[in-house]
Amino acid sequence: MIINLNDAASFLKEHDNYTIITHAHPDGDTLGSGFGLCLALRSMGKKANVINNEELPAKFRFLDVEKQDFEEQTVVAVDIADVTLMGEDMKARYGERVDLCIDHHGANRLFAKLSYVDSGAAAAAEIVAELVELLGIEMNADIADRLFTGISTDTGCFRYANVTPKTHLIAAQLMGYGANAAKINVAMFETKSKTYAVLEKMALESMEFHFDGRCAIITITQDMFDKSGSSENECEGIAALPRQVEGVKVGVTIRERRNGEYKASVRTHDPVDASAICSKLGGGGHRNASGCSLPFTLEEAKSKLLKVIGEAL
Amino acid sequence: MIINLNDAASFLKEHDNYTIITHAHPDGDTLGSGFGLCLALRSMGKKANVINNEELPAKFRFLDVEKQDFEEQTVVAVDIADVTLMGEDMKARYGERVDLCIDHHGANRLFAKLSYVDSGAAAAAEIVAELVELLGIEMNADIADRLFTGISTDTGCFRYANVTPKTHLIAAQLMGYGANAAKINVAMFETKSKTYAVLEKMALESMEFHFDGRCAIITITQDMFDKSGSSENECEGIAALPRQVEGVKVGVTIRERRNGEYKASVRTHDPVDASAICSKLGGGGHRNASGCSLPFTLEEAKSKLLKVIGEAL
Repeated sequence: MIINLNDAASFLKEHDNYTIITHAHPDGDTLGSGFGLCLALRSMGKKANVINNEELPAKFRFLDVEKQDFEEQTVVAVDIADVTLMGEDMKARYGERVDLCIDHHGANRLFAKLSYVDSGAAAAAEIVAELVELLGIEMNADIADRLFTGISTDTGCFRYANVTPKTHLIAAQLMGYGANAAKINVAMFETKSKTYAVLEKMALESMEFHFDGRCAIITITQDMFDKSGSSENECEGIAALPRQVEGVKVGVTIRERRNGEYKASVRTHDPVDASAICSKLGGGGHRNASGCSLPFTLEEAKSKLLKVIGEAL
Repeated sequence: MIINLNDAASFLKEHDNYTIITHAHPDGDTLGSGFGLCLALRSMGKKANVINNEELPAKFRFLDVEKQDFEEQTVVAVDIADVTLMGEDMKARYGERVDLCIDHHGANRLFAKLSYVDSGAAAAAEIVAELVELLGIEMNADIADRLFTGISTDTGCFRYANVTPKTHLIAAQLMGYGANAAKINVAMFETKSKTYAVLEKMALESMEFHFDGRCAIITITQDMFDKSGSSENECEGIAALPRQVEGVKVGVTIRERRNGEYKASVRTHDPVDASAICSKLGGGGHRNASGCSLPFTLEEAKSKLLKVIGEAL
């Protein structure tokens, strides 16, 4: 059932012993909103943990909080649009047991018993910030750091079209409560490992153009991971690069997975709809940033992508 | 004489027939705050023009406004810390004739008759936004676009340590008045010309490390401009790259000028002070972003830089 923000706040007030779950391949928003909500619930005197089925990427480890010991009663999902995005383990364990889902993906599949979805929010963390205010919880620097991280990572540091005046207002408030914005932004956006720097150079060398320069494709192979010493965990930033070239409307990053299959990240400039392109190949996401799996050879993967991109252009 | 914000607002109310001057090699802030102030003054019924002695870089041309015809009476400088930054022509014409300087550089040389300097402002455009409010001028989308551009360019799109809660509040207000933030940010930060993309690749290849990886240096030669088809106008973004590598405290970009001399852009992470490094070589700027001219051979230039950087580390 779809509920409103007040209902979501009431739900959080009325329940206890929370398990908060985040999506697989966790990013700054699912983790920032998850750990931020966890600390907010604890400061209301509730018990709460965030459960991940995988190790946190190094750059997000500062968001982590110590586990509490209690018997789980209430399951809340943050930033999870569909049970398939939980990862296999977590899906098996929690897929049918989510009491409340807090999300900002318009394509949310409403898998939870109660769902609050605000597709106008730039980040799930923006919604959690509103819930914290509505619940009268006193914000502190620890909560603010986590919510700021969620907002800044999901907006490319306030760069993308999902940013609204409200996003900036919330950022101002979080900084006022002590969020260390400068430090977080350096860690999220101004820090490349040396291995990533090498991978990025290789990725830029692989860039090719199609449709009169309106589409640019970068290809990252397992061989490039090996040679650079980098890994899949590090390559998210590369997905932004092809769309940055002047004239490019559709920027694609194809990366080879360990099993030899491929995955594409598609970034578009309006009016081209990345989500429409990816949904034709069984994927999905946001209007300007989507993805899909491509269980084909590289040539097949590219040709399938180019076909649907050609239609979209 | 140093004045406060109220005095600056009163000054603007009391005078007329404004020439607003911007600094040489104009960036988004000097142009955004200049043209924004120009439109704000006009909406008060004043006459105002912005005077540049050089063509606007292509990416900033949307900020331009049509010239008015009137006899100049009042000269206002925006984002100009010193007369030497006006460029030769403008310095000769206006260097000793500036009535009011509005600036956010702590190192402002107070060359104007009256100076309002707020070194806590992330951008000169932030100050102009405050003046517009103080003057009771009705903000509109045209003014908001220009001030937003100034703020977003001088903060690396809200990424740098100069951003305060006030910066985000003003951004929220400007978006509320119709600033097209998404479009401006794409044009400023997500758009690389193909020639720039090639230059960037070459620049990354030139990167070398010193002092156990705490200093990274990129070198851009005239030969690289020729081969990539790019030019000095385009290479500002490259200055951010060396500091982004993990462990780097001082990122330097040395570029060769047409006359064979060199210019260094120095970016630091705290606690290293870029302005202190550059001032030892006759340059200056902000704490984390400064520059200096190096009228030497490349080898000499590097060795002088490495000496002062070694002292700073």
